[in-house]
Parts: sequence; structure tokens; C-alpha cells
Amino acid sequence: MDTRPIGVFDSGMGGLTAVRQMIRLLPGEDIVYFGDTGRVPYGGRSAETIVRYARQDVAFLQSFDLKAIVIACGTVSTTAMDVLKRENAIPILGVVQPAANAAVKRTKTGKIGVIGTKATIRSGAYESAILALLPAAKLTTKACPLLVPLVEDGRVRRGDPVTERVVEEYLAPVKAQGVDTLVLGCTHYPLLRDVISDYMGSAVSLVDTGEEAARASAALLAEQGGLNDPARAGERRYYASDSAEDFAATASLYLGSDISNRVERVAIETY
Amino acid sequence: MDTRPIGVFDSGMGGLTAVRQMIRLLPGEDIVYFGDTGRVPYGGRSAETIVRYARQDVAFLQSFDLKAIVIACGTVSTTAMDVLKRENAIPILGVVQPAANAAVKRTKTGKIGVIGTKATIRSGAYESAILALLPAAKLTTKACPLLVPLVEDGRVRRGDPVTERVVEEYLAPVKAQGVDTLVLGCTHYPLLRDVISDYMGSAVSLVDTGEEAARASAALLAEQGGLNDPARAGERRYYASDSAEDFAATASLYLGSDISNRVERVAIETY
Repeated sequence: MDTRPIGVFDSGMGGLTAVRQMIRLLPGEDIVYFGDTGRVPYGGRSAETIVRYARQDVAFLQSFDLKAIVIACGTVSTTAMDVLKRENAIPILGVVQPAANAAVKRTKTGKIGVIGTKATIRSGAYESAILALLPAAKLTTKACPLLVPLVEDGRVRRGDPVTERVVEEYLAPVKAQGVDTLVLGCTHYPLLRDVISDYMGSAVSLVDTGEEAARASAALLAEQGGLNDPARAGERRYYASDSAEDFAATASLYLGSDISNRVERVAIETY
Repeated sequence: MDTRPIGVFDSGMGGLTAVRQMIRLLPGEDIVYFGDTGRVPYGGRSAETIVRYARQDVAFLQSFDLKAIVIACGTVSTTAMDVLKRENAIPILGVVQPAANAAVKRTKTGKIGVIGTKATIRSGAYESAILALLPAAKLTTKACPLLVPLVEDGRVRRGDPVTERVVEEYLAPVKAQGVDTLVLGCTHYPLLRDVISDYMGSAVSLVDTGEEAARASAALLAEQGGLNDPARAGERRYYASDSAEDFAATASLYLGSDISNRVERVAIETY
């Protein structure tokens, strides 16, 4: 048994979709979450800047005594994972491998779509991971730069004409390829699940990267005997680089529960 | 005559619309531009974070021997201007007062619209400045959080169905009030001039905040005898907090000219 908390971070709020799944799957675990809301979004920035920010995010989390770190961010997982693993001894999990495993397990036709931020698609990380498992896979990828701004603006509901138009535009070429599985390669995207699913049709399986990362961290901890007592009530602490009040106010949209009074601001540029 | 450069900054690329006008109006002036592309956009962040970032932006510019600083950013001008003026002895110009002057001069009916980022509209700064000049003005304001992401994604052209739909949604209530003048309260928005003008109709006068700030700085320098020799060719240097290559690649969209080899990266968080 390992009673230390798990660290989780994201460029902003999106990683909370992974935390929500971790709370469900690992109710006894303590979680320390950092959201870089003062510098979100990462997905349009250069690889160099993403790596610099990710290093600071990890350095902040390392100020706690953690048993593992989950990168609950598609952009960081695809762009900075290797550097972070090389520079840190603590086990680090990203969203890419768990999502690739799930996609390969679910596809019947081998036709798999991947959507993500510009940096994520530029990295080619999801493709490499999927092709390593299923060399015959036929992949279609699409960068979707406006989806994070739409989610951050709370425009996630069915019937929002702008969101539906943007989703249709990005997904039309993916749908045209006849994929049977679509990797939502950014942890913001599960909030758009309804709109995406309506457009792609119910026959297309959507891979929620946050959910798969949560499942993979549960499996890893179980395997290493690193779980906490599942009967206890895990504690969660949240840190953000912009206003704690703003973070708390929006977090319920992602988490499905209220976290007022449990958020603190952190000066991430000092790490 | 004052041969020192003028400093200009923005959260990202938008301020280049002001630089473009400054080059036209003040061809002999040297300009040092800083775009905080590593932390753009500012408009959705808390006032506290905007002030913190703006202080660093000014501190970086103050590392040069400048004769004036132009805040070519609606969000900073509306949210941090007072703090920056209080803390710095150098003359600092924002976009609010010049835009308010222009709007009041142009309106015939007194019905004026103001659009900007969330932080800009929340601040109420344009309204205060306009009402101080024209207490009978009837103002309609509207926060347009998706316009900066659309411009940063290069989706500025007529016929872009998403951009046209978003502009229509934001401007419908402004148009319904029958405004005859619309303040484009963010220096990114002049790139959307065609789409905005098509929707509002040619009878509505659009106030370009970057252009007005450029005009105001020309007037201020002339008044103080602070102009450089207008016959010389001014030099411009550009700094960005994300990749210099990415900045140079996009800058021509805003500036109308190529600036490769004249951009350097700066570690803004160290200021």
C-alpha cells in the first residue's frame, strides 16, 4: 500500500475529465491537480515552449511527495513525454499509450481517426503508438484548433450552431474515411462527446483519453502494489496558475462536483 | 528631436495592426515590439493575472531606452493601464482614450457599440471614456471571446462560414440597437474588418483601435517635439515569448510585410 497522492496536470481545465474518472475508479486515492490556467492553451504553441511549461508543471508537482504523475493533457503527452520521463525518476503516465491500446482493442476495421490540437497532430505520437500495435491500421488525423477555445468558453452543448458547424467541418474528412473508432486526443474533447457522437454516428466508438489514462493508472498502481486503501475517502487538492476563484467556478462543468475552497493559486513561472 | 525608439506591446500578434499604422504615420521612428505569444490570449484571464503579465511586458520594454510605450492591446489598456502609468515614469499610451475620442467624433446619433474580450468588457473602460466625453451616448457592449482564437487561427476571410456565424451571433444584439459607430476594442479585430463590415453594413463606422492609438502617439510626439527625423527609415525590432520563427511566419498577415530575421525570443517570465 502506498498512501502518497497521485499528481495530475494539464494546460488548464481539460485534465479534470481524467480526474473525474480517477475519482470513480480510484476512490481511495489522494490527488494533487495542477491546471496551468494562466498559460492555457498549449496546443498552438511551439514544441520548445510546451516542453518548457511542462517541465515547470512537473517541478511544481514534484514539490509534493507523490507516487506517480499523470499527464492529463494530449498536447504535453504527445510533445514533452520523453523529456519528462528522462528527467524524472517518478513513474509518469501520459494519455497516448492508454488511448492507443483502447483504440486498437476497439476497432474492427482498423480504420481509426485521431483528433487533437495542432501540436498533438504535428507530433505524430498517436499514430506511432497505434501503428506499433497494429501496423495495418489506416489512420486519419485532424488538428482541431478551435475546439479547446469552444470548450473553455463553455460552448459544449448540442444545438450550439457554432460548435456544431466547427465539429462538422473538422470531422467531415475523418467521417469520409469511414473510421469505426475516433480517438479524442485532447482531454477537453470529452465535453463535446454529444456533439461529436451525433455527427459521427453511434456506430463510431469514441476513445476518451482521460478515461483511458485513469484506467491505466489504476492498473499500474494495482500491479505495483501501490494503491491506497480503496475504502477510505480520497482527498483532492487543486492548484491553478490563474485565479483560484475562476478555476473553482468552472471546474464543476468538468468534474461534475463542487470544489470551492479546495483551489489555490500557484506562481508556476517560479518553478 | 528624440531619436529613441517607441516601445509597443500586445498579448500576441494583434498589436501589429497598430505597428502597421505607426509605420505608415511615423516612418522615421524606430520601434521595439513585444508580443507575448507564449501566454496569449489575455482576454479570458483574471484581472490580477493580466496586470502581472503586463508589468513584465513593460519591464522588458523598459530594458531599452525608449521615449514612449504604446499598449497596443485592448485587454491590457482596459485592465492594467492605471497600474502601469502609476508605476512607470515613461509616457504610456493605451488604445482606450484614442478610440473613445474617435467614436465620439464620428457618431451622429450617439449610439455606439463596443466589442472586446471578456476582460475588456468586464472593465467598462471604453464606456467610461466615451461617457466622459459624451454623457448622452447610448452604449451597447458585447464580449466576443471567440474572435481572438479565430484570428489567431487565420480564419479572417469573407466566406468563412464559422467566422461569419460567430460574428453574426455576437453582433446581432449590437446591430439591433441601431449603432452608427462600432469600436473594435481589441487590436486583433481589424483583421475581421471585412466580415464585420459586411454584417453591420457600410453605414456603420468601425473604429480601429490600433489605428487610433498610432494617430494619438504621432500627435503626442509631435506636440512634445519628440519625433525622430521623418525622412530617415525607421528600424523595427520584434520580440516574442514563443518561437521567433512562428512569430515571423504569421506576422505578415498583420503587418503586410515580411520580418524574417528581425524577431528574437525573450524569456518574459524572468522580467
